[in-house]
Amino acid sequence: MRRSSTIILSLAATFSVSCTQPPATSSPRPQWAVAIHGGAGVLDPAKYGDRAPDYADGLRRALNVAVTSLKSGEASINVVEQVVATLEDDPLFNAGRGAVLNWDGEVEMDASIMSGGDHSCGAVAGVRTVKNPIRLARLVMDRSRHVLFAGAGAEAFADQMAMPRMEPSYFHTQRRHESWLRYREKHESPDQHGTVGCVALDRQGRLAAATSTGGLTGKQPGRVGDTPIIGAGTWADDETCAVSCTGTGEEFIRHGVAQRISDLMANRGASLNEAARHVIENILRPGDGGIIAVDRSGAIAMVYSTGGMFRGAATSDGRFEVAIWDEPENPRQAP
Amino acid sequence: MRRSSTIILSLAATFSVSCTQPPATSSPRPQWAVAIHGGAGVLDPAKYGDRAPDYADGLRRALNVAVTSLKSGEASINVVEQVVATLEDDPLFNAGRGAVLNWDGEVEMDASIMSGGDHSCGAVAGVRTVKNPIRLARLVMDRSRHVLFAGAGAEAFADQMAMPRMEPSYFHTQRRHESWLRYREKHESPDQHGTVGCVALDRQGRLAAATSTGGLTGKQPGRVGDTPIIGAGTWADDETCAVSCTGTGEEFIRHGVAQRISDLMANRGASLNEAARHVIENILRPGDGGIIAVDRSGAIAMVYSTGGMFRGAATSDGRFEVAIWDEPENPRQAP
Repeated sequence: MRRSSTIILSLAATFSVSCTQPPATSSPRPQWAVAIHGGAGVLDPAKYGDRAPDYADGLRRALNVAVTSLKSGEASINVVEQVVATLEDDPLFNAGRGAVLNWDGEVEMDASIMSGGDHSCGAVAGVRTVKNPIRLARLVMDRSRHVLFAGAGAEAFADQMAMPRMEPSYFHTQRRHESWLRYREKHESPDQHGTVGCVALDRQGRLAAATSTGGLTGKQPGRVGDTPIIGAGTWADDETCAVSCTGTGEEFIRHGVAQRISDLMANRGASLNEAARHVIENILRPGDGGIIAVDRSGAIAMVYSTGGMFRGAATSDGRFEVAIWDEPENPRQAP
Repeated sequence: MRRSSTIILSLAATFSVSCTQPPATSSPRPQWAVAIHGGAGVLDPAKYGDRAPDYADGLRRALNVAVTSLKSGEASINVVEQVVATLEDDPLFNAGRGAVLNWDGEVEMDASIMSGGDHSCGAVAGVRTVKNPIRLARLVMDRSRHVLFAGAGAEAFADQMAMPRMEPSYFHTQRRHESWLRYREKHESPDQHGTVGCVALDRQGRLAAATSTGGLTGKQPGRVGDTPIIGAGTWADDETCAVSCTGTGEEFIRHGVAQRISDLMANRGASLNEAARHVIENILRPGDGGIIAVDRSGAIAMVYSTGGMFRGAATSDGRFEVAIWDEPENPRQAP
């Protein structure tokens, strides 16, 4: 890990400056803040241009759910669950309805959720029939003494919890079927790492994160990526930040990305943006993916090393924007 | 997380001293170093006293495998795999043969392995027929583009790899069957968190870690603990240390224990022992479990907050010891 060691030295130099100076901004922290993502990837504007308004609408709908809840004082752990469930229900995104198909042409969905106060968390991997995997992850957190259930055991837990279940036809979309056929016939991968996620700071200063995915088109059955791995795809700690990741899951696991961003804040005095940029730009490889994060002060980071990332952010200060590429698309105020 | 914040302040004070002083010892680093564990728990000496010599023999056998390999210049990643496979084959320990039974009376085994040089890693969760889950985890690392396979998908990957498979009768032991009956009938849990693990530094300065388990007696099928979670139960980074954990898996996931120890070394300048003690004694709760770790200098930490931990350590400097409680049991030189 020569690369890592060099980078830590340069970080140390950067942080020694930022640690000895007061923060550049002295604006009061927003009462609440939220960020969402709907996956990252090459996202060639020539190919996605026509569909950009649809994606922007989907992101805005989810962001509005967050804004309404956070305004009313809802706990961040409930907000991230609700927002991710909204994105799962939207067939545009690779989670819940519209999840991609594995090699056998079936959905296998992963999700996780974490509360920053006491690190309580829940996750599921490889579920096939649960309408909203993020809600099952929440029940693992609240109603079991465990953190992670996988495969048939996760389905059995869903039975115990009487979770809403759906037939395969509910999850399958024509677009995912075509992607699956192209992968099976030509090993042609879609240019998108599909995942959805939400991070939020509520009025009480509580942080939470949630992530959900259908994984990779044509993946081998049983493959589990970073989404249900606490510390890799999802992390929340009220002392630092809440993080949700999207990208080449294996790389996010190898480098413990979500927890690593939090650790750089806790142990190096890095700002959220410094920590997130360091991990995405220096620890991961170009094209590996992106993250959204919010810290205890309400600062938001949305960093990616791909062509684009479906994303959105809102705060009590009136910020409300969604974006796919480098510039916010059609920024508009919250209604 | 008030507790965490207080502790980080006290760590900062401690580390500011250790960072500005040269290391207390100037002895050259050993050419190689290895530590193993066979689980932690209450381990009441009154109950385990009679069986202590058997456990000590099992630990010594595994440690001898490590010593022979490391002496001959074997790569640490091969050593940790071989040692964990040896412990899996020993019915005394809760991994491979002798794994505990889940609620349905079946084995469901988890394992992971990680190399500190490039963070390459592999893991499996919920395998039922594979003789040596750690060898399957190694193949996930070497022969797939993925990191983790769970459940039926892990078994399918084992088919592709033509892994040796065993009938249920191979894994089941009379002792585990009795524990399972006691759990089913009286909800009486065994007083041991069974897991096996190995961490090693080889002559080339490469670190590696491996962990394997049958999980919890009477667990709900599909429950996955920290053992196959990179960052929680297993971590290795050549710049810091290699770690293998044993204990209440959910707590090790919530606090990202293995990666956290490495991060405290990288970002706080903590010694291996300081970092390990901090996480076991201050982040986790008393009784949660323990860790073994080796750092790039060959220092070894074996820290637990339970009544005992089956463990052993050896170095090129002639150290060769196994222990269960606070004092090494029958320390003796390597043959």
